[in-house]
Amino acid sequence: MHQTLWDDRYAMRTQRMKSSAIRELLKITELPGIISFGGGLPAPDVFPVEEFKTACIKVLNEYGPQALQYGATEGYTPLREMIARHSEKYLPNVTRDNILITSGSQQALDLIGKIFINRGDRILVESPTYLGALQAWNAYGAEYVSVPSDENGMMTEHLEAALRTGPKFIYVLPNFQNPTGATIPLERRKQLIALADRYGVPIIEDDPYGQIRYEGEHLPSVVTLDSGNRKTNGCYIGNVIYLSTFSKILAPGIRLAWVVAPPEVILKLVQAKQGADLNTSSFNQITAYEVGRGGFLDKHVLTIRDCYRERRDVMLDALTEHMPEGVKWTHPKGGLFLWATLPEGMNTTELLQDAVAEKVAYVPGTSFFANGGGENTMRLNFSYSKPELINEGIARLGKVFKKKLVKK
Amino acid sequence: MHQTLWDDRYAMRTQRMKSSAIRELLKITELPGIISFGGGLPAPDVFPVEEFKTACIKVLNEYGPQALQYGATEGYTPLREMIARHSEKYLPNVTRDNILITSGSQQALDLIGKIFINRGDRILVESPTYLGALQAWNAYGAEYVSVPSDENGMMTEHLEAALRTGPKFIYVLPNFQNPTGATIPLERRKQLIALADRYGVPIIEDDPYGQIRYEGEHLPSVVTLDSGNRKTNGCYIGNVIYLSTFSKILAPGIRLAWVVAPPEVILKLVQAKQGADLNTSSFNQITAYEVGRGGFLDKHVLTIRDCYRERRDVMLDALTEHMPEGVKWTHPKGGLFLWATLPEGMNTTELLQDAVAEKVAYVPGTSFFANGGGENTMRLNFSYSKPELINEGIARLGKVFKKKLVKK
Repeated sequence: MHQTLWDDRYAMRTQRMKSSAIRELLKITELPGIISFGGGLPAPDVFPVEEFKTACIKVLNEYGPQALQYGATEGYTPLREMIARHSEKYLPNVTRDNILITSGSQQALDLIGKIFINRGDRILVESPTYLGALQAWNAYGAEYVSVPSDENGMMTEHLEAALRTGPKFIYVLPNFQNPTGATIPLERRKQLIALADRYGVPIIEDDPYGQIRYEGEHLPSVVTLDSGNRKTNGCYIGNVIYLSTFSKILAPGIRLAWVVAPPEVILKLVQAKQGADLNTSSFNQITAYEVGRGGFLDKHVLTIRDCYRERRDVMLDALTEHMPEGVKWTHPKGGLFLWATLPEGMNTTELLQDAVAEKVAYVPGTSFFANGGGENTMRLNFSYSKPELINEGIARLGKVFKKKLVKK
Repeated sequence: MHQTLWDDRYAMRTQRMKSSAIRELLKITELPGIISFGGGLPAPDVFPVEEFKTACIKVLNEYGPQALQYGATEGYTPLREMIARHSEKYLPNVTRDNILITSGSQQALDLIGKIFINRGDRILVESPTYLGALQAWNAYGAEYVSVPSDENGMMTEHLEAALRTGPKFIYVLPNFQNPTGATIPLERRKQLIALADRYGVPIIEDDPYGQIRYEGEHLPSVVTLDSGNRKTNGCYIGNVIYLSTFSKILAPGIRLAWVVAPPEVILKLVQAKQGADLNTSSFNQITAYEVGRGGFLDKHVLTIRDCYRERRDVMLDALTEHMPEGVKWTHPKGGLFLWATLPEGMNTTELLQDAVAEKVAYVPGTSFFANGGGENTMRLNFSYSKPELINEGIARLGKVFKKKLVKK
C-alpha cells in the first residue's frame, strides 16, 4: 500500500542502495555493554581535544566571521598547502592545485563515481574491498571485476585477466587494507603499475592509513611509482588519483579528507562538488589548519601509532589464546583492522546474532565482496576498544565460535 | 592532446556539468575593492561569533572526544529534536523521525536527485529558479518543464499544462524566492496543492529564507497546506518534502541544513547519504545545537531581520535614485535577493564585464532559467554588503547601464 506519492517515484539506482552493514553496526555499538570490533572508529582516547579547543578559540578570535562564511569549493587554500607540504615525503611534486578538500573520503569516492562512472561500467577491485566504495559506486550503476587477494593483498598474477574485461579504473588500498589489513609489497605494486600501463587503465589509490604503520618500512605509494607521474608547472600530472583523510590522523567528526589528482581532474571534481554540497565546512577547515600546522600532525601520528600498535598486539595475543583450532587471521603491519577466517562451512552473518547475544560485535566479511563470497570471514577493528576490552571481547567471540564448532 | 588516461574516461553526465556562475563569482568577490551583489552570502556582521566560541569550548569540555567521532547518518538526535521544536509553529506534526541533517541544503538537493531522478525525468520548476537545484539535478540527467513566474512567483494558471507533461515532482521556493525575491500568495499556494493533487505529482518545497521576513504576515508553507498531510504515529506523512537550513539563520560555514519528509523517504535519503559522505560533521551539529538551544535561534532571527531589512531598503532607494529609465526591479518582502530587469535587448552577461571594470558584480539572470531566457535580467544580493557600499555599488551599476543605454 502506498503511503505517499513518493513511494513509486524512486529512481532505478535507489533499488541498488541498501543500508551499510557497518552503519547499522554503529547503532549496536551504542548499546551499553557491547564490545564492538565492528565500526572503523578511531580511538577517542587519541583525539586532540585540547588542541581543538585552543584552535577554535584562536579561529573565532582571529579569523572571526570569515570562519563561519561560505568558502571556495576547492577548499581553504592554506589547508591545501599544508597537505601538500605534509605529503611531500610520500608524494613529491604535489601542489595545492592538485588538491581538493572533501567532506570525508566517502565524498571523494562519491564524486569520483559521479564524474567517471556510466551505468554498466566495470570497476576493478580487490576481493575483498572497502564496502564504502561499493556503496558509493553502486549508486552510479557500477559493475565490478574482482581480483582475489592473499596476505599480501591483490594477487597481481590474476590482474591481467581482469584488465582484459576493460575496466574504467582500478581501485586499490595498498596499505593495511580495509578490510583485510594486508599491505601490497613493492614487487606487486610495480606489477600493478606495469599492467595498468600496458592496458591503459588508470588507478584510484585509497590510502587512509598509510601513516599509521607499526612495523616495517614505508613503501612507495602507487602514485609515486606510476610511470605516467610527471611534473608540469610544478604540478603532479599522472594516471593515479590518490585519496587520504584527516579522519584517522586528527578526528573523523570534522569530516575532512582530500583528493590528489591532476589539475584537470580536480576541476571536474570541483564542478561535481559544487552540485553536491557547495563546499566543505570553512570552520572545520580553518580549525584543522590551526590544529595541524607547525608540525603537530607529524607528532600526533606517533601518538596514534603507539596507541594502536598496543591494541593490535593485544588482539593478536587474544586471538592466539581464545580462538578454536581452524580459525585463521591476518597480521596487519598498520591500520585499524585485521581479518579472520573461520573453517569452511561456518557463516559469520548467522554467527553475528550469537555474538551480539554475548555482547560482542564484528562485521561479517561478505559485505566486502563485490561479487559474493567470504561467508566464513569477518573484519575485526582493534583501534576503538581499550586493550582490556579487546581481550575480553575476543574471549567472548572465541566462546561463540567454539560452541558452534562443537555442535557441528 | 590527452595528458592522462583520465581524460577520455569521464561519464556522460560530466559533460553536462559546468562551473556555477555563482561559485565563480565568489572568486571575484574576494578581489579587493569589488562591491559584490553576486554571491548569496549572509552578512558576516550578524554571525554569532561569540556564541560559537562559548559553544565550542562547552562542547569540547563537556562532550569531549564524542564531539570529534563519527556520528549517525540521520544526524545528531538532540539537534533533530531542536529543529522539530523550532519548526513547530510553521510545520506541525514534525518529529525527529521526519528530519535528516544534511551538509548544507545543496546536499539535500543532491540526495533528492540521487534517489528520485532517472535520466530523462522531467522536473517542474519555476522560471527562473534556484540554479543550485539545476546544477544538482543535471548530474542525474534531469530535464525541466518551466512554469513562468511574475511578481507573485509561479503563475499557477500555467501550471496545469506543465503538469500534463508528467513531471516526477514540482520544485518550488514559495518565500522570497532565489533568484527573484517573489513570494507566492496564499491563493496560488492553494492552487498549486490542488493541481499537484489532481495530477498526483509530489512537491519539493525549498524554504531557506522563510523566517527572514521584513513585512507582511507569514504565509502557511506548502507542506502544511498539502491535503495529503497527516499524522501517523506522531510523524508527518504527506506528499511534500520540505527543505531548510542553518546557513541563513546561524552561519553557512558550518554546512548544516535539514530535510523534512515522510519517514520512508528519510530512510532512502539516509541510504544515499551513507554513500555520499557517511554523516555530517558531529562537531558542527553538536556546536549548532549548543548555540541554538534555549531560544537563541528565535532571538537571533530578529537581529538578522533588522539588519537585512535596512539593507533591502537601502538597495531599493538606491535603485530608485541611480537606475536609468526602463530598468525594473522586484520589492521582496524578505530573503536575500531582488531581481532587476533591463530593457529588452540588453544583455546582462555581456554587461557584467563592464560592471566588474567599475568594481561591482551581480549574477546574470540567464543562469537561473532551466530552458533559456532572461538575457536582460540579473539577481542582486542585498544581505552581504554594508548599507553605504550598497548605495555606492548601485550607483556604479546605474552608471554602467546608462552608458550602455546611451550608446544604443
